[in-house]
Amino acid sequence: MSRHGHIDLRTSMDGKYKEIAEELFSRSLAESEMRSAPYEFPEESPIEQLEERRQRLERQISQDIKFEPDILLRAKQDFMKTDSATDLDQAPKELYPERELVVEREYQRVAISGEEKCGVPFTDLLDAAKCVVKALFIREKYISRSMQSFCRTTTRYLQEELGDVTVHPPVSETHPYEVLDPASMPPGLGYACKMLDGVVHVYTSSELDLPYPDLQEYIADMNMMMALIINGPVKSFCYRRLQYLSSKFQMHILLNEMKELAAQKKVPHRDFYNIRKVDTHIHASSCMNQKHLLRFIKRAMKKYPGEIVHVEQSRGQTLLEVFESMNLTAFDLSVDTLDMHADRNTFHRFDKFNSKYNPIGESILREIFIKTDNHVEGKYFGHIIKEVMADLEESKYQNVELRLSIYGRSRDEWDKLAQWAIKHKVYSDNVRWLVQVPRLFDVYHTKKQLSNFQEMLENIFMPLFEVTVNPSSHPQLHLFLEHVVGFDSVDDESKPEHHIFNLDSPKPVNWTEEDNPPYSYYLYYMYANMTVLNHLRRQRNLNSFVLRPHCGEAGPIHHLVSGFMLSENISHGLLLRKAPVLQYLYYLAQIGIAMSPLSNNSLFLSYHRNPLPEYLSRGLMVSLSTDDPLQFHFTKEPLMEEYSIAAQVWKLSSCDMCELARNSVLMSGFSHQVKSYWLGPHYLKEGQEGTDIRRTNVPDIRVAYRFETLCEELNLITQAVRSEELETVEEQGSLCMGAGR
Amino acid sequence: MSRHGHIDLRTSMDGKYKEIAEELFSRSLAESEMRSAPYEFPEESPIEQLEERRQRLERQISQDIKFEPDILLRAKQDFMKTDSATDLDQAPKELYPERELVVEREYQRVAISGEEKCGVPFTDLLDAAKCVVKALFIREKYISRSMQSFCRTTTRYLQEELGDVTVHPPVSETHPYEVLDPASMPPGLGYACKMLDGVVHVYTSSELDLPYPDLQEYIADMNMMMALIINGPVKSFCYRRLQYLSSKFQMHILLNEMKELAAQKKVPHRDFYNIRKVDTHIHASSCMNQKHLLRFIKRAMKKYPGEIVHVEQSRGQTLLEVFESMNLTAFDLSVDTLDMHADRNTFHRFDKFNSKYNPIGESILREIFIKTDNHVEGKYFGHIIKEVMADLEESKYQNVELRLSIYGRSRDEWDKLAQWAIKHKVYSDNVRWLVQVPRLFDVYHTKKQLSNFQEMLENIFMPLFEVTVNPSSHPQLHLFLEHVVGFDSVDDESKPEHHIFNLDSPKPVNWTEEDNPPYSYYLYYMYANMTVLNHLRRQRNLNSFVLRPHCGEAGPIHHLVSGFMLSENISHGLLLRKAPVLQYLYYLAQIGIAMSPLSNNSLFLSYHRNPLPEYLSRGLMVSLSTDDPLQFHFTKEPLMEEYSIAAQVWKLSSCDMCELARNSVLMSGFSHQVKSYWLGPHYLKEGQEGTDIRRTNVPDIRVAYRFETLCEELNLITQAVRSEELETVEEQGSLCMGAGR
Repeated sequence: MSRHGHIDLRTSMDGKYKEIAEELFSRSLAESEMRSAPYEFPEESPIEQLEERRQRLERQISQDIKFEPDILLRAKQDFMKTDSATDLDQAPKELYPERELVVEREYQRVAISGEEKCGVPFTDLLDAAKCVVKALFIREKYISRSMQSFCRTTTRYLQEELGDVTVHPPVSETHPYEVLDPASMPPGLGYACKMLDGVVHVYTSSELDLPYPDLQEYIADMNMMMALIINGPVKSFCYRRLQYLSSKFQMHILLNEMKELAAQKKVPHRDFYNIRKVDTHIHASSCMNQKHLLRFIKRAMKKYPGEIVHVEQSRGQTLLEVFESMNLTAFDLSVDTLDMHADRNTFHRFDKFNSKYNPIGESILREIFIKTDNHVEGKYFGHIIKEVMADLEESKYQNVELRLSIYGRSRDEWDKLAQWAIKHKVYSDNVRWLVQVPRLFDVYHTKKQLSNFQEMLENIFMPLFEVTVNPSSHPQLHLFLEHVVGFDSVDDESKPEHHIFNLDSPKPVNWTEEDNPPYSYYLYYMYANMTVLNHLRRQRNLNSFVLRPHCGEAGPIHHLVSGFMLSENISHGLLLRKAPVLQYLYYLAQIGIAMSPLSNNSLFLSYHRNPLPEYLSRGLMVSLSTDDPLQFHFTKEPLMEEYSIAAQVWKLSSCDMCELARNSVLMSGFSHQVKSYWLGPHYLKEGQEGTDIRRTNVPDIRVAYRFETLCEELNLITQAVRSEELETVEEQGSLCMGAGR
Repeated sequence: MSRHGHIDLRTSMDGKYKEIAEELFSRSLAESEMRSAPYEFPEESPIEQLEERRQRLERQISQDIKFEPDILLRAKQDFMKTDSATDLDQAPKELYPERELVVEREYQRVAISGEEKCGVPFTDLLDAAKCVVKALFIREKYISRSMQSFCRTTTRYLQEELGDVTVHPPVSETHPYEVLDPASMPPGLGYACKMLDGVVHVYTSSELDLPYPDLQEYIADMNMMMALIINGPVKSFCYRRLQYLSSKFQMHILLNEMKELAAQKKVPHRDFYNIRKVDTHIHASSCMNQKHLLRFIKRAMKKYPGEIVHVEQSRGQTLLEVFESMNLTAFDLSVDTLDMHADRNTFHRFDKFNSKYNPIGESILREIFIKTDNHVEGKYFGHIIKEVMADLEESKYQNVELRLSIYGRSRDEWDKLAQWAIKHKVYSDNVRWLVQVPRLFDVYHTKKQLSNFQEMLENIFMPLFEVTVNPSSHPQLHLFLEHVVGFDSVDDESKPEHHIFNLDSPKPVNWTEEDNPPYSYYLYYMYANMTVLNHLRRQRNLNSFVLRPHCGEAGPIHHLVSGFMLSENISHGLLLRKAPVLQYLYYLAQIGIAMSPLSNNSLFLSYHRNPLPEYLSRGLMVSLSTDDPLQFHFTKEPLMEEYSIAAQVWKLSSCDMCELARNSVLMSGFSHQVKSYWLGPHYLKEGQEGTDIRRTNVPDIRVAYRFETLCEELNLITQAVRSEELETVEEQGSLCMGAGR
């Protein structure tokens, strides 16, 4: 444009502009920090060569740790045969030789020296320690009595206090349902079962000795726990310890991050994508994402438009009619019409959220497509679950523990559920079942379906005792139960509780009021019956069950107390962030916590405030789970999506991710055999001996750090208590009696 | 256990415990808020019935808006034929009848009344308005001169000021490369091209008139812009307006959210999953995720171990040898060894981040696998890109604009690149090319590859002029260019700039110093040459190009000024959050901003502080892009992952998501024909007439709100200026002369 009259421009205020501009430019120069980095063309920059050298070095080092050459050779040949997605699991077992202990023992450790290591005067430490140990004893008692598993390391430190050992009962195995042959089942024992005060008792001539902690004992222990967790000094002690654990981990990372990373790179073939992960908390009725459900419904409408799917006043309705009654065609359907995704309006509105379970807001579609018990005997639901299973098996490394519902409204629920599973062969090696019991007595009661709470308990537990005493009485249920890991207790915890559970509370048979029993009431009776049942099944060498309730997602703190006392692990545990004593106890006992930040983000706590990264840094046994892919996830791989978002938002390292995945396997209900295959044959051993980076991709350093830190912590506590044992033999004694036996 | 001595427990402090416990329980009762919601069993709760009724109502309403029945019928039949994933696009075109304008005009509007509508005294408004209009004129001038497109609505308001119209030049079409037949190409014109002062001039006997704003003009305008954006009153005015736009949007949402949602549900078949999305900022060399690249490398090592892939001192190295030299086997490889994922250490370390482009930290692997110009002529890179293309075509709704690099080190780069694309037939309907030019003159200069900056410019632009003047001189390049949308300018913006661009700056031919020219220097010369080139190509009716640089990711603010003046749209624009005047101008001019929060999160700004949600609420033309799936993403669907995380962390509604997707198509370089197919035939029309919810799933209400708000804003500004035009004809006049002509 130099030709066209622009000259008038270089006039007037121009000079001033220039002045200002220059001033600005030079200022911006001053601001811009010293950095240097060619884009997309790095060969020249020194840091490049540096990085390259570093990497070469690492690889050089990695050559030092070698497997027996012949094994490596075989592995390679094996690999060359199969495709690039091959995985060591296909390679010969010898590929994992008995691990020559060249394990990484060397790393930067943080050590504290001097008196009063824990930063509080000894007397405070002593009181706190006593309380904490008391609490641990209480849990140890309830867990071992119910044959659930208790952290070995913690037990070891406690055992020096009291000498009993937790035994590991047979747990459910992964294998397809065998042919249904009552003859081949264990014989009936002819025991009689009767529920007294909400707990089943079993009789031959006399009553069998199937011990469980009775109500008085439970109330007493719970009261003691409640008193402990609000004790001021104990609170601040635990808070300090948690802070200490956080900063210790920060230091560990600063000092060892590179080393952890290097260790991961050394491991041939293994990375975050091909380590086993278990989705430890996910509901069957919403385990598929919306797009999947939508496609399924459309296909169903095309394939079976004429099928009777529902009966309205004794008149059968076909699938087509159902949709016509809604003025909808398969063609019209979209994820938006389905409207099952949680949104801004579900935040702190568990009710609205629940209503989202209904496709297009129609409970009838929910009944037809995502329920096991309906006019088509849950055929559609069975099919869609099997599609999800197929995807999981294709992904190979992703596994889930699906929740199925037992409501306790009638005795035949278990048989119907078992029939559904076995009739439609709903089975996969990648899937285990948990049974969730919604806490809805009040609803059924007002609907006159139940007259008292004991009826509900009987509906839930009597069939389980019957089938255990005499498998052929419910053959399908017998088979189905072999695939059930345990029980979950579910509902909106933020619902108000109008009752305080104590010895004056009505017994289940007398619980006839409108109000719902409180959380702890539900949990105790589920626990007590499960405990008796486990003892009975143990006698018959059948798999036993664990308690893994929703706990601490919202509502009062004492839910987390019941959870601490009675359950092997919990889902959510959000509220631990407000209860330092409990959080410290959950850490010391290494209680599994299946967290679902995306779910929380839609319901109770926005993502960046979620305590998961804090828990993880302190060493709590946390894992990532999806809870409700149907409502919270967008991609075809909900679990990967959950991990990805966590990694991005919280800047988790590959090592953190792999630790989370390893935790998820540890706390899952998969069988011992499967776990040894996924984590390494010695996974039950403590610390480094228990881990195998070649399978989990978790560096020994990380495992060692967690183990040593836990030991130091337990040592601090138990030493303190022991130190004054002599003076107070009897007091201690009675305590052990009380809490320990 | 009632039988075994627990009695000692119910003693001592027990009473006290009970007391405390009860106290606690009752307190927790008080705390728990009133809520109610049965879990997984909603039929009973009133809200259920409410929701159901609401939904029924909505559907009833939706019945009112109907298409011609016969069309609907055909569509259904059509649908019944094809599978459930069917999409309207397969259905007959008539499915989109000329839209009977039953468009949603009714919604809750926010209106401001009274004097001084904008909340500032008129004089302030006046000064601010003048500056803003000045700035818009400047952009309008540069954009129209370079044949890039300028927001129609804004133009309309400006046109009443000055009367020239922006014309839409032919842009690149999507179609496979045709057979290479020089004869069929446009004839050579025998023009001569010569670069003077960094800009190409074209001659026959005399010089052709291919106008471009010359250096003086650019400097003058830039200085004026710089002065405007730091003018105090203007700053606070723009800030107020932006705040106003935010809160106005919040109100709009509160009042119309439900209505928007209902509108989306009304649309048959369409949802977020099946609307078109364009990844408007993604680099070809990292468009595959790590797992994909890993698998590809492993496959390559199995299939072509013996292929010579690299020449080290005139000695050929086979793929096998390359890996042996690194002590690695395909079997050993894992994502960890690959080590290409951004991590905590890349935050604010663009250099470290760049080094991550090297698989296993080895630049040689990068050369072999993700470069177009290497010993195997980019064969592997071609293949992997084609795999990515296949995935995109399968996904059907996801499209990308991939960046390929031209460095400007030698004249034959363009021919090599074109040859690569055409030889390996690297083409997909879902993919458009952009060419990125790294700002690396200083690097090449120190390596003695370039003696002055003009050489770099010549290497970049001369071939483009030659092929335009005489296509058969570079036949492959001629074909390739038909698929190129425009130019990107890339590098770490946070690198310090030691030079201020003004009239005293050395001309390109004299730029021989160590230092790199500043950002604005690069951008101006790219712009100027592109402008001349576009005029020349227009004369030949060939597609023209646009400028879409990385801009405002980091570094000094004035990058965003150059971007505002010279480019059709930009990538990143993070720093607009610190420059209210510019942000307001980017809004008024509706300049596309392709944002990549996950990339920013790893490099410059942690996720929850990203300004995207703020920009979106204010109505800036933002879209979501992945930038670098190889380094930032985990799942197989990086773009969906990007959307999912944004939706979760920022609680975006389905409507927000669809608006983002629509923006991405609008700002993309796909052809007019394609866009009219994706967005609706009238997408170029302003406001509601331009939109079609049946294709974009964006409710008319949302589009209307955006349009009306923009008009109000532009009106406020232009009215103010016009109001005093009379008094100051000449001043205004000269201004228009200066800025407008």
